[in-house]
Amino acid sequence: MRTVELIQKKRDAEQLTTAEIDYMIQGYTKGDIPDYQMSAWAMAIYFNGMTAKETADLTLAMARSGDQAELGSIPGVKVDKHSTGGVGDTTTLILAPLVAAAGVPVAKMSGRGLGHTGGTIDKLEAIAGFKVELGKEQFLQQVTDIGVAVIGQSGNMTPADKKLYGLRDVTATIESIPLIASSIMSKKIASGADAIVLDVKTGNGAFMKSLEDSIKLAQAMVEIGEEVGRETVAVITNMDEPLGEAIGNALEVREAIETLQGRGPADLTELCIVLAAHMVVLGGKAATYDEAKVKVTELLHNGSALAKLKQLVGAQGGNEAIIDSPELLVSAPYQVPVMAAEDGTVSRIDAEALGVTAMLLGAGRATKEDQIDLAVGMVLRKKVGDSVRSGEMLAELYMNNNEPMFTEDMTQRTRSAFTLVTGSAARSPLIYAIVSRNGVEMI
Amino acid sequence: MRTVELIQKKRDAEQLTTAEIDYMIQGYTKGDIPDYQMSAWAMAIYFNGMTAKETADLTLAMARSGDQAELGSIPGVKVDKHSTGGVGDTTTLILAPLVAAAGVPVAKMSGRGLGHTGGTIDKLEAIAGFKVELGKEQFLQQVTDIGVAVIGQSGNMTPADKKLYGLRDVTATIESIPLIASSIMSKKIASGADAIVLDVKTGNGAFMKSLEDSIKLAQAMVEIGEEVGRETVAVITNMDEPLGEAIGNALEVREAIETLQGRGPADLTELCIVLAAHMVVLGGKAATYDEAKVKVTELLHNGSALAKLKQLVGAQGGNEAIIDSPELLVSAPYQVPVMAAEDGTVSRIDAEALGVTAMLLGAGRATKEDQIDLAVGMVLRKKVGDSVRSGEMLAELYMNNNEPMFTEDMTQRTRSAFTLVTGSAARSPLIYAIVSRNGVEMI
Repeated sequence: MRTVELIQKKRDAEQLTTAEIDYMIQGYTKGDIPDYQMSAWAMAIYFNGMTAKETADLTLAMARSGDQAELGSIPGVKVDKHSTGGVGDTTTLILAPLVAAAGVPVAKMSGRGLGHTGGTIDKLEAIAGFKVELGKEQFLQQVTDIGVAVIGQSGNMTPADKKLYGLRDVTATIESIPLIASSIMSKKIASGADAIVLDVKTGNGAFMKSLEDSIKLAQAMVEIGEEVGRETVAVITNMDEPLGEAIGNALEVREAIETLQGRGPADLTELCIVLAAHMVVLGGKAATYDEAKVKVTELLHNGSALAKLKQLVGAQGGNEAIIDSPELLVSAPYQVPVMAAEDGTVSRIDAEALGVTAMLLGAGRATKEDQIDLAVGMVLRKKVGDSVRSGEMLAELYMNNNEPMFTEDMTQRTRSAFTLVTGSAARSPLIYAIVSRNGVEMI
Repeated sequence: MRTVELIQKKRDAEQLTTAEIDYMIQGYTKGDIPDYQMSAWAMAIYFNGMTAKETADLTLAMARSGDQAELGSIPGVKVDKHSTGGVGDTTTLILAPLVAAAGVPVAKMSGRGLGHTGGTIDKLEAIAGFKVELGKEQFLQQVTDIGVAVIGQSGNMTPADKKLYGLRDVTATIESIPLIASSIMSKKIASGADAIVLDVKTGNGAFMKSLEDSIKLAQAMVEIGEEVGRETVAVITNMDEPLGEAIGNALEVREAIETLQGRGPADLTELCIVLAAHMVVLGGKAATYDEAKVKVTELLHNGSALAKLKQLVGAQGGNEAIIDSPELLVSAPYQVPVMAAEDGTVSRIDAEALGVTAMLLGAGRATKEDQIDLAVGMVLRKKVGDSVRSGEMLAELYMNNNEPMFTEDMTQRTRSAFTLVTGSAARSPLIYAIVSRNGVEMI
């Protein structure tokens, strides 16, 4: 097989075979195929797309390019979840114990934050003592014993995806639906998921700007799931503003606890219930979505899910007392209010801009090597649809540094992330559509 | 300027500015832009094309990427010629003295052969003593004195084109008209051409398989010429068979001498007259094409062009006696006839296959480092349209090695390059069209 001929084949819109896609991915992972051929191939895929079969082949080739989690010893259907968003997205901290409380085993491998997006592993480290690294046997045993474990990705998972994603980032080949879909799905499959629930964000603040493209991406991922025998359901959700109110590691842990206490922000609570219900159906712990929804709503309100979080924290060495007393979490010394400069109604909140601001406050990393400050971040006081008067608080910053110029800069950045309009502003629906093997259901 | 944004711009079919194209080409030449970004950019150009302005900007950026010939001290309009073909293409050896005899200065820089294509510099070295390297001043002085000099490319000309062409070759991005056109034109412009005549081969044996694509390529090059102020005329010619009869270095020199004696193969003679006439018009030495054609035909038949070749050979240290006695050229000890195995009419002769056979005989190089044998090659005895009987000679091989298995292989390869049909076979016209600033003139 000659690489240049496979580039040409895709350039000429012909379909590649399983063996040809394997050859490209294995060759690239091993370094036999150079970056300059891979980037030309990616650009040809950008223009000519891939069939469902090709996309599934690419996904499996990448999933098998490195280490793969073996969850076979854990009884039950392992259901994983992925979100394409990531600013102030506290869902994993809530879903893991909630779904586990419903009897679906959660053997979750999560990542760290980079740039404007946060990572579940960083958030968990805001809980004193919480160990994000477990031995393989200990990890499997914990899921078998208490139904849930959350650890950082270890070993060499999906090296092909890491290498290809890095290359696409500098060659203008990110925005290709088969390449995005296979990247996401390869990681879930390598992590051992039997079934997958996806939260595909759409809107100004999201990677996918249009609902149409978001649905296409969701369909591509659901199709991959079908091809590779991992049932997949995608929920298309609104990203005109950050989810919930907290952005920052300890602040998001507190928000997760509050949500599991039944007093979290409405949008975060609603989304968690929807995602959890789909996970419970896929995990075989409810016959219908409606039944699952009733079940998870009850588990969220009766304290079962919160108790499961406490059990998870205890099992991984964290301070369980934090669950009952979130004030024990690390906290930042300076709380700085960000005031509205005019009257109006909030029509949009730029999630990415607030993610960047939180990163600059110290809650995130500009580069992989940066240390983060677990205590800092912000809490939104207004959300889209809320009316606000000049001088009223839009958000509150949690800072470890109150140097005036820095404070002024952070305040300005936060304020300008809010778009105010005169008159009223309609809040977009939180959930636009559900995409599954049964097709697209508009909500 | 960020490279990834310029890749994206072309990916999204937007027009790049002169400064943006300069940035890409200069950055790539210097090594600041890596191969993997350049190949993605090339693939985006493959899909989205380039405007005439962009193609001209790319051409100039590549022409300026390295050394450029300065021919300003030579009086007159310097007209260069390029052929996209290259098997048994003896035209430069004929055109240089012919055009010089008409008063157009010829300051020609030529290349060596590689693979199945020959190179003028190798052919000239078949003339004992001929120096293909001259100092810059000596080169200019010789053109000023006798009107013609032909040397090998020296220094670091169009490094951007060399690097990009090598990359395109392994990334399936060769077949892009703006990239092919700018590659050819950049070399001509760096060589100092004021005006350019192009011989664009078309047909099975040519790079451009269809007449339509050949005309598009010719139009792209004529447009570049217009944009950069170098008037360009392209002649679209037939490539259903090799041009002339000889393939191999000394054999082609002998054919060139015979043609300048007025007894060369009809197709080679006709094409040289047409190309020379266009060069003479562009060089300002005739008012019309018809006038130029009469002039060059006369110079070819009255011995003036042959005398000019003798003068050129003498000026560059070669053995002038060869012009009057071509038998003094190096010759191969074994002449092996290739016989037809059946009766028929020749409908096609695969020029590339014969080029490869000549290379295997020793007339060409498989890699740049190979030594070539100046004496070996072949002479065709039948051309398209000729009828042939079983046992009649199709071609004669000139060999330095008569080992039976090698001889059998070479004979077989040569024979199978001839396609024989029953009945008659029409000979395609030699010249299909002329493309100039005045448009496309079908012949």
